[in-house]
Amino acid sequence: MTDVRERLRALSLELPVLGAPKYSYEPTTRWGNLLWVSGQISRTASGEILRGRVGQDASLEDGRAAAETSALNLLARVDDAVGLENVEQILKLDIWVASAPDFTDQPSVAEGASQLLRSVLGDAGRHARTALPTHVLPQGALVELDATIAVRGEK
Amino acid sequence: MTDVRERLRALSLELPVLGAPKYSYEPTTRWGNLLWVSGQISRTASGEILRGRVGQDASLEDGRAAAETSALNLLARVDDAVGLENVEQILKLDIWVASAPDFTDQPSVAEGASQLLRSVLGDAGRHARTALPTHVLPQGALVELDATIAVRGEK
Amino acid sequence: MTDVRERLRALSLELPVLGAPKYSYEPTTRWGNLLWVSGQISRTASGEILRGRVGQDASLEDGRAAAETSALNLLARVDDAVGLENVEQILKLDIWVASAPDFTDQPSVAEGASQLLRSVLGDAGRHARTALPTHVLPQGALVELDATIAVRGEK
Repeated sequence: MTDVRERLRALSLELPVLGAPKYSYEPTTRWGNLLWVSGQISRTASGEILRGRVGQDASLEDGRAAAETSALNLLARVDDAVGLENVEQILKLDIWVASAPDFTDQPSVAEGASQLLRSVLGDAGRHARTALPTHVLPQGALVELDATIAVRGEK
Repeated sequence: MTDVRERLRALSLELPVLGAPKYSYEPTTRWGNLLWVSGQISRTASGEILRGRVGQDASLEDGRAAAETSALNLLARVDDAVGLENVEQILKLDIWVASAPDFTDQPSVAEGASQLLRSVLGDAGRHARTALPTHVLPQGALVELDATIAVRGEK
Repeated sequence: MTDVRERLRALSLELPVLGAPKYSYEPTTRWGNLLWVSGQISRTASGEILRGRVGQDASLEDGRAAAETSALNLLARVDDAVGLENVEQILKLDIWVASAPDFTDQPSVAEGASQLLRSVLGDAGRHARTALPTHVLPQGALVELDATIAVRGEK
């Protein structure tokens, strides 16, 4: 797990710099060695929100890219909170995909996030997952996700 | 945290008296110092359900009031289970807002709940959050929410 | 809790044999004595997916049967991970019901899962719950659910 930074570089990934939420909640909370991360939508490092609904005005590939973007935001939040090298395991990933009423392949969209987490974190990125559709998401985002994570070290 | 009751009074808030769920689940479960609270809908102390969809037949302000009502129910459940003075921290708040398909400001609706929790509990009310839209909610409610909470004391 | 197998037999229930997920996630993750179970849809032991939306092309009874099927899959995942006899308590059940926009009795559908968990696990099956509607579910399923569970024994 000391090579997380190298893996990010090898994958040509850069963690976005995220400001404080504009609202009355925390990006993460920690209790002992458990970390909860607030919902992260598909907003790119440049601030653009990847919008739409898969199966309507966005493709499965668009959805997968949005899932990757959301996962990168999640990693940035975790890095800010405890340092990525202190992730023991992503325990649970919950992911919501804005979907047309007849689009039912949310698991394939969610793969964008799951594969990125595993590529960056290795075994620590292995996680349980629930992938769900929604008819819309905050700010019109394509994807939102959050996670419960086991972390190392003293608080 | 000894002044939770005073804060409730100062805010002119009164915890509703909630009966046992009519269904086969518990209002809360506890494991060590973690507490899980079941989904609480926007039902007022008098039993009226605040209904509708934000952006359709309910305004953002209606939604925010419904979020406050739901949060007050959450606090009542926590008080019944462990006593509000034993809340160490609200770790995660999940909140669902019944929404028109083109309404995307669920975070502003969720503020009704987040701000109430912080007003009543102070620092113990600071939480991670995921705000999500749904096309409908149980009993036609405007808002539903649940939480994972760290609590003090022996079980 | 030594009689879980007997209870399954008495209820004429058989745990399905579930293969590894086709996707990049784990059926369960464990951290200490907590277990997270990935989303389980209403797929029967024979591989048929119970599909539809309650209030549109499926009845409340169809929904309840789909909730039972999903709960049985959840138990199978838990059994594979730690053995059902090592469940200390189902702490939280989250359940999603594919619903017509005017169907609002998700709690009655969710009873199918809650009652099955309590019938099989006894007091260890008592749980907090959040029941939510969605406009669609992965693979067109009627019901999806997941859970956080306290388990006994060393990892």
